[in-house]
Amino acid sequence: MKKIGKQTIKTASMVNILSSSSIVGKKEGEGPLKNYFDTILEDAQWNEKTWEKTESKMQTQSLSLAVEKASCAMSDIDYLFAGDLLNQCISSGFAHRESNIPYLGIYGACSTFGEGLGLAAVMIDGGFANKCAVVTSSHFCTAERQYRMPLEYGGQRTPTAQWTVTGSGAAIISNSNKPPFIKYVTFGKIVDMGIKDANNMGAAMAPAAAQTLKAHFEDTNTVPSDYDLIISGDLGTLGKEIVTDLMNGYGYDMTKNYDDCGCMIFDIDNQDVHAGGSGCGCSTTVFCGYIMEMLKRGDLNKVLFMPTGALLSPTSNMQGETIPSVAHAVAISNIDV
Amino acid sequence: MKKIGKQTIKTASMVNILSSSSIVGKKEGEGPLKNYFDTILEDAQWNEKTWEKTESKMQTQSLSLAVEKASCAMSDIDYLFAGDLLNQCISSGFAHRESNIPYLGIYGACSTFGEGLGLAAVMIDGGFANKCAVVTSSHFCTAERQYRMPLEYGGQRTPTAQWTVTGSGAAIISNSNKPPFIKYVTFGKIVDMGIKDANNMGAAMAPAAAQTLKAHFEDTNTVPSDYDLIISGDLGTLGKEIVTDLMNGYGYDMTKNYDDCGCMIFDIDNQDVHAGGSGCGCSTTVFCGYIMEMLKRGDLNKVLFMPTGALLSPTSNMQGETIPSVAHAVAISNIDV
Repeated sequence: MKKIGKQTIKTASMVNILSSSSIVGKKEGEGPLKNYFDTILEDAQWNEKTWEKTESKMQTQSLSLAVEKASCAMSDIDYLFAGDLLNQCISSGFAHRESNIPYLGIYGACSTFGEGLGLAAVMIDGGFANKCAVVTSSHFCTAERQYRMPLEYGGQRTPTAQWTVTGSGAAIISNSNKPPFIKYVTFGKIVDMGIKDANNMGAAMAPAAAQTLKAHFEDTNTVPSDYDLIISGDLGTLGKEIVTDLMNGYGYDMTKNYDDCGCMIFDIDNQDVHAGGSGCGCSTTVFCGYIMEMLKRGDLNKVLFMPTGALLSPTSNMQGETIPSVAHAVAISNIDV
Repeated sequence: MKKIGKQTIKTASMVNILSSSSIVGKKEGEGPLKNYFDTILEDAQWNEKTWEKTESKMQTQSLSLAVEKASCAMSDIDYLFAGDLLNQCISSGFAHRESNIPYLGIYGACSTFGEGLGLAAVMIDGGFANKCAVVTSSHFCTAERQYRMPLEYGGQRTPTAQWTVTGSGAAIISNSNKPPFIKYVTFGKIVDMGIKDANNMGAAMAPAAAQTLKAHFEDTNTVPSDYDLIISGDLGTLGKEIVTDLMNGYGYDMTKNYDDCGCMIFDIDNQDVHAGGSGCGCSTTVFCGYIMEMLKRGDLNKVLFMPTGALLSPTSNMQGETIPSVAHAVAISNIDV
């Protein structure tokens, strides 16, 4: 069995991230990580008639770019894992109509990229594929009108609200000996602590993140200091604090090397994003852009990457439901031991 | 490599379907397959305040029942694959809040159960898990109000329209030597032939179904007559005809042993369902109820089960988009060779 402990998979062979690509919107391209993205859009449209088409185009292009960077052809990709936040995951479905790759749609809200990396690693390590692609996206304008208000309405946002990242990233997972390698995947359980405020998703997702982290450390017999960086998906400033507190309660010190993609992608103090970035595109582009570059340079060698997802919908919210959440952790290392 | 041909995975070890369960609504419980379902609901509510809660409850209960029939505990399930048709897959997310099983959300519209069976087989065959669960659902009332019209409006339906099945099914996939076994999984590509009529989804999905079938037969070097039954998900009467025609064009005779879950679950002539049943729950309950019983009895020994999905949304439809579709085929046999 390649499962260790209760929730974790340990890869037995070399499973590597061969390449990655990232495309972000204008606002993300003005943030602290602007130098790490492959493409920065000049506006929200990208010459498309609808924002939904723009989001799909971002996925198509990020996949093409990752394939190009992997020096392979689209036909070399055995399986494609893709997902997004739109109803019925249309950004993904429409993006890959022409790709001609067997398609596996996944949905984990903003945790989708972590789920995809994990399942791709399973496919490669199990000997079912030589190359898999993982792609996700989100777009501020498609998310706002679907989840919240028409943009034209100009509604005020609460201090705990987060800003959906416009961005898409793709990664090619393979079985070659080029670092970085995926060593462990801890698939998360659904945790719901009863938070009902859809404008405070960091707080809703934090307990799921802490559950996954605790399971990961227990299953792999590690502690936070075994990593150069532990990075959650899009908890934002408030959710990050809660995770740090919860983990402290479990006896783990997260104060030294823990950050959150939602806190990193924007200049929180000056870009008017309130509690930080969110959306599938947030953790995906921070990982595919910044983290992958740091791993490549050797500035980071061991990273625990954990996208987080809030599994609510506007319907569930209007029906007074709480917010179930999930987080998947992927341990990535430059050293294959 | 356990991948054969272009799109197909061949299991190398024993991967079996240990148990399955099915829950359906009142109308489905009056159809031709009524004797094969575990539970038939008396109304659309099942004592819940909203139809969304009813749908979630169906998933929770069908999972419990499948676990019970497998004579194992919920804690024995390593990973759970779940999905449904509602925005952000809330039926699944909310259903499994208490399950305490690592959760992998999947989205393939009505092909979801096929995708789940395939990924669960990969997990088991790759040695990553001993037991996985796959659960999906759909509900006529939640689907109508999300995809089409408020039920109270009483809108007329076109002759090609299908009736969303109220139902949920679950299967436990394991590595024991008890038949039936999952032998091959052919993961489908997205195919979009330009159909725009959301009331004619059978026609939209048929080319994707034919693409997957053709790939399956080529990859495994088989022909339709190698199976006792080939059964598609929810193409309905029209889609089934188109698949038969398309396959005939490819040189495959589908007239002898091919049927469609959407044509079987209702009495098409007398239950006012127009072109047949649809929804994740359609192929799932027909498989978990009827097909599994036929396999158990030995009335069927080799089945090619292929759920089909239309990856549209009301938004994409209103924006004038076509309907991308996908189909995943799972070859199941009572004989482990």
